[in-house]
Amino acid sequence: MASIPSATVGRLVTYLRVLATLADRGIVRTSSDDLAREARVSAFQVRKDLAYFGRFGTRGAGYDVDALSTELHRILGLERAWNVAIIGMGRLGSALADYPNMARYNFCLQAAFDVAPEKVGTVVAGVPVYAMRELPERVREHDVQVALLTVPGEGAQAATEALAAAGVRGIVNFASTVLDPPEGVHVEAIDFLAGLKRVSYALHAETSDDERAAS
Amino acid sequence: MASIPSATVGRLVTYLRVLATLADRGIVRTSSDDLAREARVSAFQVRKDLAYFGRFGTRGAGYDVDALSTELHRILGLERAWNVAIIGMGRLGSALADYPNMARYNFCLQAAFDVAPEKVGTVVAGVPVYAMRELPERVREHDVQVALLTVPGEGAQAATEALAAAGVRGIVNFASTVLDPPEGVHVEAIDFLAGLKRVSYALHAETSDDERAAS
Repeated sequence: MASIPSATVGRLVTYLRVLATLADRGIVRTSSDDLAREARVSAFQVRKDLAYFGRFGTRGAGYDVDALSTELHRILGLERAWNVAIIGMGRLGSALADYPNMARYNFCLQAAFDVAPEKVGTVVAGVPVYAMRELPERVREHDVQVALLTVPGEGAQAATEALAAAGVRGIVNFASTVLDPPEGVHVEAIDFLAGLKRVSYALHAETSDDERAAS
Repeated sequence: MASIPSATVGRLVTYLRVLATLADRGIVRTSSDDLAREARVSAFQVRKDLAYFGRFGTRGAGYDVDALSTELHRILGLERAWNVAIIGMGRLGSALADYPNMARYNFCLQAAFDVAPEKVGTVVAGVPVYAMRELPERVREHDVQVALLTVPGEGAQAATEALAAAGVRGIVNFASTVLDPPEGVHVEAIDFLAGLKRVSYALHAETSDDERAAS
């Protein structure tokens, strides 16, 4: 499998989410037009992205929701299970521990870590909370491959280095700081405010239109 | 201003985040190559996106971080302040109330809402928590324009309709359900698992490469 550009990977992730919502609504077939509208890209883009991986659709008949979803799972490496840990059990970390749908994508939450003594030894959403200093041995014990990083910004880089030293190669960074990951560690940053900024544009563009129409 | 395709808006939001991190590091000039690498798109795409809005860069000299950032704020409607409310003060809602950087983009958190009687009347991160049934009058009182929706999935659609009836036209949906918003209401969905899925692809692609190399 040739490496896929990360912009394409991002769109495949979006298509997969759209397919999940279609499946939840009991819809069994879809089209590049439907996928494009829900994913907010062009139908041409959908067809081009999916063409990377061979032919899924039948001309004129669209895509089978289940089959395409299975194929995207395979491409994204979601057929296998990933063992996940949460680093930082504050409000965000606890919210993530409870987030539904993790298991749907084979993400198995195995462990959580925090520095606060009163949290260590508790169980949140079925997951044991360990002390940060136990990270090396607990990561190995639970065979953790991916970490969700929700520590305060100032602790994020040190946590990243501890994770890398323990052998974790994938980190989803919810902190607002930019990480400088060690070689071989893949970091995906989550921008909580991205949704707000896109809404801002949408409302702002409408207001500008209204003002132009009124002038 | 002509309407910008939503994929472009999404990338502008990413460029703005990259610029903020460059500014935090004390960097005053950047290039389309730098922006492209950090935003994980092509340099051609960066230049094409920014060309929508006239010429920012100077050939060979790149972009002024501050000036480009100011311009993106203007385009995205972030020069003006938006009044924001959080609907659902569970762990995620409380975490969002505390999220740094909101004010940096002129998002003014004004009010929060919950159904739990023990939360109503409290103040979280400086923001008053009201009962859901007070939503219509409190939204008007605080002139709320945008809502962050963090209620459980089964309550999300009803909350959306209440917000729309109260005049809120922008919603960022953190619930895992898909909303059917009333006409004129703009919804942006946040997929918490998108980062995890992109990490999954990155690790999976590496593993496949390693296996090929070993065989």
